[in-house]
Amino acid sequence: MDDDVPLILTLDDSGSGASAPLDDLDREELPNENGGSYDVINDASSPAAGDCCAQQSSARHNWEMNYQEAAIYLQEGENNDKFFTHPKNAKALAAYLFAHNHLFYLMELSTALLLLLLSLCEAPAVPMLRLGIFVHATLELFALIVVVFELSMKMRWLGFQTFIRHKRTMVKTCVLFVQFIEAIVVLVRQTSHVRITRALRCIFLVDCRYCGAVRRNLRQIFQSLPPFIDILLLLLFFMVIFAILGFYLFSPNHSDPYFNTLENSLVNLFVLLTTSNFPDVMMPSYARNPWSCVFFIVYLSIELYFIMNLLLAVVFDTFNDIEKRKFKSLLLHKRTAIQHAYRLLITKQRPSGISFKHFEGLLRFYKPRMCARERYLTFKALNQSNTPLVSLKDFYNFYEVVGLKWKAKRNREHWFDDLPRTAFLIFKGINILVKSRVFQYTMYTVVAVNGIWILVETFMLQGGNFFSRNVPWSYIVFLTIYGVELLLKTTGLGPVEYLSSGWNLFDFSVTLFAFLGLMALAFNMEPFYFIVVLRPLQLLRLFKLKKRYRNVLDTMFELFPRMASLGLTLLIFYYCFAIVGMEFFAGVVYPNCCNTSTVADSYRWVNHTVGNKTVVEEGYYYLNNFDNILNSFVTLFELTVVNDWYIIMEGVTSQTTHWSRLYFMIFYIVTMVVMTIIVAFILDAFVFRMNYTRKNQDSEEDNGIVLEKEISKEEVVGIIELYKRSSAATETAQLQKIVLQMDKYGQMSTLFLGRRSRTKSDLSMKMYEEEIQEWYEEHSRKEESQTPLQEPASASNSSLKPLSLRQRSQTVI
Amino acid sequence: MDDDVPLILTLDDSGSGASAPLDDLDREELPNENGGSYDVINDASSPAAGDCCAQQSSARHNWEMNYQEAAIYLQEGENNDKFFTHPKNAKALAAYLFAHNHLFYLMELSTALLLLLLSLCEAPAVPMLRLGIFVHATLELFALIVVVFELSMKMRWLGFQTFIRHKRTMVKTCVLFVQFIEAIVVLVRQTSHVRITRALRCIFLVDCRYCGAVRRNLRQIFQSLPPFIDILLLLLFFMVIFAILGFYLFSPNHSDPYFNTLENSLVNLFVLLTTSNFPDVMMPSYARNPWSCVFFIVYLSIELYFIMNLLLAVVFDTFNDIEKRKFKSLLLHKRTAIQHAYRLLITKQRPSGISFKHFEGLLRFYKPRMCARERYLTFKALNQSNTPLVSLKDFYNFYEVVGLKWKAKRNREHWFDDLPRTAFLIFKGINILVKSRVFQYTMYTVVAVNGIWILVETFMLQGGNFFSRNVPWSYIVFLTIYGVELLLKTTGLGPVEYLSSGWNLFDFSVTLFAFLGLMALAFNMEPFYFIVVLRPLQLLRLFKLKKRYRNVLDTMFELFPRMASLGLTLLIFYYCFAIVGMEFFAGVVYPNCCNTSTVADSYRWVNHTVGNKTVVEEGYYYLNNFDNILNSFVTLFELTVVNDWYIIMEGVTSQTTHWSRLYFMIFYIVTMVVMTIIVAFILDAFVFRMNYTRKNQDSEEDNGIVLEKEISKEEVVGIIELYKRSSAATETAQLQKIVLQMDKYGQMSTLFLGRRSRTKSDLSMKMYEEEIQEWYEEHSRKEESQTPLQEPASASNSSLKPLSLRQRSQTVI
Repeated sequence: MDDDVPLILTLDDSGSGASAPLDDLDREELPNENGGSYDVINDASSPAAGDCCAQQSSARHNWEMNYQEAAIYLQEGENNDKFFTHPKNAKALAAYLFAHNHLFYLMELSTALLLLLLSLCEAPAVPMLRLGIFVHATLELFALIVVVFELSMKMRWLGFQTFIRHKRTMVKTCVLFVQFIEAIVVLVRQTSHVRITRALRCIFLVDCRYCGAVRRNLRQIFQSLPPFIDILLLLLFFMVIFAILGFYLFSPNHSDPYFNTLENSLVNLFVLLTTSNFPDVMMPSYARNPWSCVFFIVYLSIELYFIMNLLLAVVFDTFNDIEKRKFKSLLLHKRTAIQHAYRLLITKQRPSGISFKHFEGLLRFYKPRMCARERYLTFKALNQSNTPLVSLKDFYNFYEVVGLKWKAKRNREHWFDDLPRTAFLIFKGINILVKSRVFQYTMYTVVAVNGIWILVETFMLQGGNFFSRNVPWSYIVFLTIYGVELLLKTTGLGPVEYLSSGWNLFDFSVTLFAFLGLMALAFNMEPFYFIVVLRPLQLLRLFKLKKRYRNVLDTMFELFPRMASLGLTLLIFYYCFAIVGMEFFAGVVYPNCCNTSTVADSYRWVNHTVGNKTVVEEGYYYLNNFDNILNSFVTLFELTVVNDWYIIMEGVTSQTTHWSRLYFMIFYIVTMVVMTIIVAFILDAFVFRMNYTRKNQDSEEDNGIVLEKEISKEEVVGIIELYKRSSAATETAQLQKIVLQMDKYGQMSTLFLGRRSRTKSDLSMKMYEEEIQEWYEEHSRKEESQTPLQEPASASNSSLKPLSLRQRSQTVI
Repeated sequence: MDDDVPLILTLDDSGSGASAPLDDLDREELPNENGGSYDVINDASSPAAGDCCAQQSSARHNWEMNYQEAAIYLQEGENNDKFFTHPKNAKALAAYLFAHNHLFYLMELSTALLLLLLSLCEAPAVPMLRLGIFVHATLELFALIVVVFELSMKMRWLGFQTFIRHKRTMVKTCVLFVQFIEAIVVLVRQTSHVRITRALRCIFLVDCRYCGAVRRNLRQIFQSLPPFIDILLLLLFFMVIFAILGFYLFSPNHSDPYFNTLENSLVNLFVLLTTSNFPDVMMPSYARNPWSCVFFIVYLSIELYFIMNLLLAVVFDTFNDIEKRKFKSLLLHKRTAIQHAYRLLITKQRPSGISFKHFEGLLRFYKPRMCARERYLTFKALNQSNTPLVSLKDFYNFYEVVGLKWKAKRNREHWFDDLPRTAFLIFKGINILVKSRVFQYTMYTVVAVNGIWILVETFMLQGGNFFSRNVPWSYIVFLTIYGVELLLKTTGLGPVEYLSSGWNLFDFSVTLFAFLGLMALAFNMEPFYFIVVLRPLQLLRLFKLKKRYRNVLDTMFELFPRMASLGLTLLIFYYCFAIVGMEFFAGVVYPNCCNTSTVADSYRWVNHTVGNKTVVEEGYYYLNNFDNILNSFVTLFELTVVNDWYIIMEGVTSQTTHWSRLYFMIFYIVTMVVMTIIVAFILDAFVFRMNYTRKNQDSEEDNGIVLEKEISKEEVVGIIELYKRSSAATETAQLQKIVLQMDKYGQMSTLFLGRRSRTKSDLSMKMYEEEIQEWYEEHSRKEESQTPLQEPASASNSSLKPLSLRQRSQTVI
């Protein structure tokens, strides 16, 4: 009958279920709670579960269920998973747990990567990595089978109905199907056919749990598209008008190859939009009539300087708007998740808050790695009132608090405080020296001198034997100074404090590299000589001097994860285009391939003799090809940079058909979209940050969220008791250590500091402070209006009902 | 003694001066004011003017003085002139009036333009405009003498002390001095020496009254510089580090000409920053080792995609901030000006407001062209209360109201309402047709079909005889349709209403041009054939269809003045660089000039025979030279577009010295600054506009400020009486006409509509609505704190004292 005990906790007494008082067991577990009523689970039978039976199951088991479900809710809130995929029954829970752990995620990721990396070895393969068709087709089939397995696991969790309705998963299934058939065909025919569908492999990567950021980026790109396309049409429209004008104006000039047909006119104006052919396209007509430059100046002013910036403005604006809406919906989603979780953790007797026992149970599922001390500190940090319960209002801060890393605040100021007097004085002296302004500025001067030295030295070299056997003395001198600085700082501050600063870490690694470089020089190890070359990086330290740079660098670090995900998004587009490019253009360009085209020079490779010297005339552009995926990536990067891209386009076009240009033009437009979004993102992030700094000029110095909490000895002892009853040995041992520590220093309490780095979400919280309150009110009003009248006490009840676990089986641990 | 009558009007009764009641005269002048006390000027002797005498001057004369001074204050407020240049005495007033009228401004502008245009004719002159040295030197001398005259007039107005302290004027004087000496030297030696100082001629243009927008732009650019320079340093720093790295990594490769010395390495990385040499600079090392592309990808990612965007972000942010601060200071300045003016217009007896008589006197000086009706309407529009006086609070709206153009609201709906019945019905029918959706969409379809037709037609031509004698029939058909549409619309709406819409005006002119083109074709007038080419412009009408485009176009028109001033600013930079370029690089590039350099191909001009055909191999880059100022401008535009700019740079460098590169690099950085600001401006304007639209979605349709005021017949008659007494014949006649009009239609009152287009300032007013109130409060608090305690009644008194007219002479009209 275990499976039939319903676990929804209703907040009001009008619940139709029978109440199961958890008496002695619980009472014994929480002895240090100061009196009052004890936790009781109120088993309200859900309307669906008709076969409600007598309570036999242990209440403890029920609580475990609740903890787990609450943890799942909180995870869904954090990951922005929709609640309709919340496991609805015990079977679903098992499936959910199977498909939601890092092992499964890693499997997903590695199969996706394997599939993507296969293109290194397939048909137009990188020479060193070429594999037989049989090998790579088998590998592919294997990977696809794993994907099938993953998908079926997902279906088991979601149920067929939801699975069918989930768009992304359906697309993935279709792609999988196609890939499967094609892989089998390849294996049977033992030859690769034109497989453009390989470009779709990206979807396996995009669908990975770890690539959530990429999915969000893609969504944001698609959301920005409508206004983007509007302006793009304006751009193309003017281009067509000018192409017609240009054709009429310049085609009478027969020495002008750029406007002799309407098609050429169009293509050249498209290229002119990217400025790639700029003065050249103007020159023949300009040579004939100087006033023809007006046409080009007007065209560029309208298209490049006006409409292209308009494009940026529109995307920036849309981006801004989407960012805010996204933040809002994420915030409200998290809030709802917290409400769901809260309702599962409170008891009927004390509906006003969560006790530590239940909070600890939640954290055991939500963050299994957290130690007992941290769990208690998190609880204390949440608890704003003096009662032993965390109210819903306090619990709303869950996500902000749970990320904090807690550390006991050092009683000892320095690491050398315990050393004997003489040593203490010496180290204290070093400490003061190291922290002094004079020392810092001396080091800056040294770095600056070093910079100038390197510059002058390099300038004097002028090519030739600069990796001579003898190490330059200046190198040794500067390295010695850096070494001494490093030593002083490490001893003065203590290694832990020294390395806790990012800048010091940077200094440390650069100095280490420089030492390695010195070794390499001294022992003449050729392959490592490049380390020497990293010396100038020391100069970056100079940028600590100015506040604006510190700000920029801080923002850069804050942005880094997002930038990386945007980069990855770009790479996914690259991958698609690389595959298509390889299928169509592999092997079409080679030295001297395009002697009949207008860009012949760039592909010419002549080896002729002038006098008695062999002159090699190399037009290197044949290197920009689609012969394998790595080359394709480099070629696509060159196309992204845009300069001289038409040479690559014309080279390929001259070897294939006119229609190849479409590929290049579409690629240009796609990268333009992505690049505009990246620019908009950087703009938005920095402008936002600068506004934030301007708004909070006083509280600017601390870069990170810091919380302080004091724990008394009695509290620790109390928790130890609690853990002892639930026979959690490791936790007990951990906490005992704290008590010992306190005893050692004769303290009655210890101060703990919780720290985490500030995220964009924190900044947004502060920036939109006022609006957030409005959102909350609006949100709860909306929910209230959905709630039936007979349940006035539970504000967010109605949306919860269908989502909680109704049935549980023994499969759950 | 006339000159000694002080005219400061103090608001409180504690003024130390004697009061001069203006009795009968004034009483007679304002007969329709409903009783009460009459206007009196309170002559408070200023502390400085010790020789205060008995009142002999006529009060009327004093009032005229006050009107004029108030008008000057309001003008200063509008033009953002500082109040310390306010004329302090009657002599100064005369000088002020001499230097502040359109004649003087035009003289300023034309001498500045003359000086600038002289460079068309000087030494490296445009061939057609070459003038003898004697001629252009004499012209220059003449222009400079005029500038001397202008400056002395300005000094007369400002006084020597202020003149010396005014930076811009001092710089101008110095430049003038140098130019003078140089012009004389040229005239004496009869040969032009190296005159880089000609680049400074711009300052004469910048200093013009009409170029206020350019001055503001320049100020904004300079204000944006500090953060810009910070990030620029970061950019250059990374460039140096990468240059050193690149030199170490790639100089062992002897086939790589880009990194063989540190200087080359630096220059090529600078050029790479502009992407101009992109795939080329990578190719030699890429050919040797494919992984070397990582260096370039990292460099471009950091420099081009990150730091350059950061630059934009920083400039955009600064720009935003400056715009807001500028708006604030301008707003407060205007407010102060209004306060100053107000204090000069109220009377002792009625300090609570300005009567129409005095308001009318003010407008006579402030806007002499305004007719009597408009003056009264402006007064009524300002007057929010029902009293006959305009209070200070109402008077604050002065600038918003004074720009309105007033028109009697039409009683007749259509222009054909007075026609006989049959004609009326016909025209009414046309009117309904023209305004119908069906008609509009039919026309859009026609335009679209026309567009496709033109495209297909042009595509079919494929070069050759497209300007044949016989006019294509499609041209005639479409033109006929457009003609009929134009005719229908003009008759249906009436010509005035038809042409009042910008879009109709556009249609009209394009159709007119098309007709002219048809004529040109029919009569075979070669020089006009380009008009035919304008046909596709009709297609622009299609953009009326979508709201976003209408928005974009509206914003474009709103931005246009500002864009033009930014363009002019850019041209001023161009001028400076063009002069410097001409002095140093005139004549250095010519066909085949640079055969020893790396860019030889682009300058090669060979005329060789292959078989029996003459092949001309033309590298046109020799056309991008500094041989005269027009060529220089085109070359500089090419440098602005950036693509392939290094070919121009290397060409010039190979003919001169390495240091020439500095010129090109500095130009790049300067245009980068200006261009970034232009981009920031466009971004700011559009984002602002879009935010505004989002905020005011309901009141969006009306594009313009509209006010409605009703005037009754009695009022008009009253005003006529007033004017009759002051024997203003023209005003009386004007007003009489209105009365006649009213009589004709038997109305007791007429409704007038005041209209003006919306400016950025209006948008800002609405956007910052809440903040503006804070600014006002803060501002008045600040002023109060500066005011001595004994004058609590006049809030903005202290700042006024030293500024008003103390002495007047008979020179004043």
